[in-house]
Amino acid sequence: MGVRVDGSARGLAFEDAGDVALPGGGERYELARRLVVEATRAGVTLASAESCTGGLVSAAVTDVPGSSTPWRGGVVSYAIPVKRAVLGVPDEVLDAPGVGAVSSECAAAMCEGARRVLGADVAVSTTGIAGPGGAEEGKPVGTVWFGVTSDAGTHTEAHLLTGDREAVRRKAVAIALGLLLSRVG
Amino acid sequence: MGVRVDGSARGLAFEDAGDVALPGGGERYELARRLVVEATRAGVTLASAESCTGGLVSAAVTDVPGSSTPWRGGVVSYAIPVKRAVLGVPDEVLDAPGVGAVSSECAAAMCEGARRVLGADVAVSTTGIAGPGGAEEGKPVGTVWFGVTSDAGTHTEAHLLTGDREAVRRKAVAIALGLLLSRVG
Repeated sequence: MGVRVDGSARGLAFEDAGDVALPGGGERYELARRLVVEATRAGVTLASAESCTGGLVSAAVTDVPGSSTPWRGGVVSYAIPVKRAVLGVPDEVLDAPGVGAVSSECAAAMCEGARRVLGADVAVSTTGIAGPGGAEEGKPVGTVWFGVTSDAGTHTEAHLLTGDREAVRRKAVAIALGLLLSRVG
Repeated sequence: MGVRVDGSARGLAFEDAGDVALPGGGERYELARRLVVEATRAGVTLASAESCTGGLVSAAVTDVPGSSTPWRGGVVSYAIPVKRAVLGVPDEVLDAPGVGAVSSECAAAMCEGARRVLGADVAVSTTGIAGPGGAEEGKPVGTVWFGVTSDAGTHTEAHLLTGDREAVRRKAVAIALGLLLSRVG
């Protein structure tokens, strides 16, 4: 998944878990297929809460025939009020200076909300800045926070992804699929 | 959008609104871009409830920079309990013989649920059988029901789409984007 970098030296408000290579469509499909096969075998159900990826994680999984066995569904919480109303992300997270929608706290609340609302064993979340607009201080374009949650607890990590809007989104999908896979089996 | 066909003569449980040409990535992007531009201009907010398209409608819209202005988000209700719990599709629809998740009634309840839950002016829904499995009597692979709802009311239509899983899903995305566009401006 790349090299973990101390972002503070580069003026980032987070520790950067590293960039990843741009996956092709075949690589993405193979990752999603593995996830469907392994989750089905393990009897584990899956869900997503997506902001910057806008539904691409769910679309990648449901591209695989048979995905209806493990895949419960997803919430694309593009607007802030949807994060609050549907996923239950607290106002303290969304409104706090220096926290907000692109943060570890929001990624954690999003995946925990998706797991609860969609009734899944494992849920992943993405929230970031795909560009070209939207950069904030300490959060350049390409900043994406991820969360994954299961009975084993909740983990979050941030990646600073390079490339245009499409590249950032495609890389983010691959990372999200990898995080789901890390909690299966 | 194709030719409306009386499906009853072909053993279908619905009137088929016709197949459509397989859209390329560029055509899909242009349709999504037009939707974002026109909805932004009209001050109209949008949302989706997706089953067989699995997040592809939301992904297509959010592929467009600036889509965060009109796009509220979406619910990918792949599992039946998600249709019930998150979108409020009634048990009478989901459990009734000859109705179920692939029906006009379910498509209507899904888009109305998405509009309510996500707080949008216009919402679209997709529910169908992308294949290769899942065909039911009177509902062959490629059967997709669509719903669109706004202050003007709720409309549903069924299409029998040809091609493999990917083709059915891509055609369904184009139809869904067209239905959203029909209620904007």
